[in-house]
Amino acid sequence: MKRIGVVLSGCGVYDGSEIHEAVLTLLAIDRNGAEAVCLAPDMEFREVNHLTSQETGATRNTLVESARIARGKIRNVAEIAAVDLDAVIFPGGYGAAKNLCNFAEKGASASIHPEVARLIREMAVAKKPIGAICIAPALIAATLGHDYRPKLTIGTDAGTAAAIAETGSEHVTCPVTEFVVDREHRIVSTPAYMLANRISESAEGIEKTVKAVIDMA
Amino acid sequence: MKRIGVVLSGCGVYDGSEIHEAVLTLLAIDRNGAEAVCLAPDMEFREVNHLTSQETGATRNTLVESARIARGKIRNVAEIAAVDLDAVIFPGGYGAAKNLCNFAEKGASASIHPEVARLIREMAVAKKPIGAICIAPALIAATLGHDYRPKLTIGTDAGTAAAIAETGSEHVTCPVTEFVVDREHRIVSTPAYMLANRISESAEGIEKTVKAVIDMA
Repeated sequence: MKRIGVVLSGCGVYDGSEIHEAVLTLLAIDRNGAEAVCLAPDMEFREVNHLTSQETGATRNTLVESARIARGKIRNVAEIAAVDLDAVIFPGGYGAAKNLCNFAEKGASASIHPEVARLIREMAVAKKPIGAICIAPALIAATLGHDYRPKLTIGTDAGTAAAIAETGSEHVTCPVTEFVVDREHRIVSTPAYMLANRISESAEGIEKTVKAVIDMA
Repeated sequence: MKRIGVVLSGCGVYDGSEIHEAVLTLLAIDRNGAEAVCLAPDMEFREVNHLTSQETGATRNTLVESARIARGKIRNVAEIAAVDLDAVIFPGGYGAAKNLCNFAEKGASASIHPEVARLIREMAVAKKPIGAICIAPALIAATLGHDYRPKLTIGTDAGTAAAIAETGSEHVTCPVTEFVVDREHRIVSTPAYMLANRISESAEGIEKTVKAVIDMA
């Protein structure tokens, strides 16, 4: 059974992993006969009240909160190497751009969480597939753009696309229910909630992306 | 477009709504052409660390945490009456048995959150369908059992089934990918993570349950 890493960044669209995207990823992995291996870095992040969209001033921990999505079955990303996985997928949510890296603040010059960067680079060197959903392609671009110049999508947002281009990556516009494949670098991406107005739109692009990643693994 | 209430109880299986069940419910509602109306009571609950399964001693708020699953679009259940909805669905998770009511502690003599009890009773009086997933049928049994004697399932767990029978309800054993319909009282239930070992098993029962609820509405 293929082992697919799912790197989470908290639990909630405004300060962690987008919950629908994460769950739809887990469902698609299971329905394609593969095993999900949930991972998250162990770091503090700034809590956002999801009723008001405002920061509360408190912090939470990415590994502890991501465990909610994983029903407790999750590993610290620092304990996992590319050799342990057949592929890895990054759901979106602001956590991908604020916790796993600081792309939301720094754009193309973002710094990446060191263990997350290590895993992404190991997967690229091993030529194992990487899936990236919603804003997570910006994390992949900021990590690999300069060296690999991957082709990927966050949908149609011009500002984000420009910041991705600045990393050396190539941004490709893509509708919400479709996905973009970079066959050379084995990177699959889909816009999901960068464009979706309904959960079923996100689901369609994610189902296609996860299947493409698993087929490629 | 039919409006389907989805009553959440927090965000995480050990102290709130089971996240997979909640998201799969929202997806199935959208795919069946209906509109989800996310609801939660406004109350404090005891936080559980999902990495360790231990209570932390801190509290969180059901409405604020449920907003993570709802992407911020959620209403206080106190503001909603049966007239506003065509049906209502309760995902599981310990929150359904510890926050929406105290069945987890008190069994058949559980007391129900007053606004949740009011909405369930209004739906029953209006003969509008009620869906209940995982442990949530225990909440429905504790609320309606004495007056309506509904037929429902939480799967196969003998202790929980006995407590449900004590409310005056009839417990029916059911496999994870199936569901039980009480046509007289318009209640549809499925075991989901009371039995599921994989997310795809939960998904199959939930998809069937949500479709049955919407068809009945």
